[in-house]
Amino acid sequence: MTETYTLHEDPRSGNCYKIKLTAALLDLPLDTRQYDIMKGETRTPEFLATVNPNGRIPVLQIEADAESHFLPESNAACWYLASGSRLIPDHRYAQADMLRWMFFEQYNHEPNIATLRFWFEFVGKEKLSDQQRAQIMPKKIAGCDALRVMDGQLENSDFLCGEAVTLADIALFAYTHVAADGGFDLGDFPHVQGWIERVCNLSGFVAME
Amino acid sequence: MTETYTLHEDPRSGNCYKIKLTAALLDLPLDTRQYDIMKGETRTPEFLATVNPNGRIPVLQIEADAESHFLPESNAACWYLASGSRLIPDHRYAQADMLRWMFFEQYNHEPNIATLRFWFEFVGKEKLSDQQRAQIMPKKIAGCDALRVMDGQLENSDFLCGEAVTLADIALFAYTHVAADGGFDLGDFPHVQGWIERVCNLSGFVAME
Repeated sequence: MTETYTLHEDPRSGNCYKIKLTAALLDLPLDTRQYDIMKGETRTPEFLATVNPNGRIPVLQIEADAESHFLPESNAACWYLASGSRLIPDHRYAQADMLRWMFFEQYNHEPNIATLRFWFEFVGKEKLSDQQRAQIMPKKIAGCDALRVMDGQLENSDFLCGEAVTLADIALFAYTHVAADGGFDLGDFPHVQGWIERVCNLSGFVAME
Repeated sequence: MTETYTLHEDPRSGNCYKIKLTAALLDLPLDTRQYDIMKGETRTPEFLATVNPNGRIPVLQIEADAESHFLPESNAACWYLASGSRLIPDHRYAQADMLRWMFFEQYNHEPNIATLRFWFEFVGKEKLSDQQRAQIMPKKIAGCDALRVMDGQLENSDFLCGEAVTLADIALFAYTHVAADGGFDLGDFPHVQGWIERVCNLSGFVAME
């Protein structure tokens, strides 16, 4: 059974990039279909009915024989593509520990670091609402806390779950390596900086567009 | 090798309850150690150094022979306990789809539905900051969106990933069944209501304290 993969994406999104980086590291072919989230293209009735009722990208479309599945959530799509590969450890604790960093990414890292990047780079500082403006400082603090936790871990190992790259690194690399766009200074996190270099040097690595 | 499990928890937390419900459904013994998050007991230097550098509960402590591991993130702890059990589907797509709902829970559901419950029930409406007050309406809207997505899925199947309970149900049940504490009216989501009843009727079910 040969499967084909189509990524429904906005190329500016780090969440979409995670899936492209996973596919590249595993040398899996991946088609893409672009949407502009700033124009509401993921909130159309057609998108909600067929691609994702949650109105968000990325979504990984998986086609095999006559069947087609749409899988939302960036980290779940990475898990699907990497199933059975070296990017997911087999050992029970190591696997759970990898997922721990992926849930940490969605709860503690993305809502702070990715959101500030989105507000500053794509919405524009001058267009932020008062409510968004009031959240800049709390998100800055929470984002620095997340980077500090990563830095502590990366002081002890080359990658987040030991000496080999896993999906935990891919999930957290996406928005960390462009954190400066959200006003974060990675100079404060030297172990994170070394890790970014190691990820960039992986065989098969592709850069974010 | 016999493992023992200790849950570092605050019994009022739905994230902690997920792990207790998983253990109960699988009939696994689980010790607990309580902390009061309102008194900063998870931010002490000792807690940060030994239990979780991220200063949060729940953390699942896993002990086997001389080794001890501390696993943060509720959904990762559930994954660890349920490894190899009927609560995690074997099939590649089904497994990724289950994780999809667990990431959805941490990104779209918990920060809205659990946070409003925490603010209203534990902080107290009259003690909220202006900044928190300004976030009530956006969180109400985003929480209703999450419940609507769940309701659409549960119109088609008894549980979130088909006809059998999985960790996706446990993860989303925790804060959904007490969503009224955060001002949500589950009467608007009849399929979610039916699903709550089905979860409560599972063999081995334990209620939240």
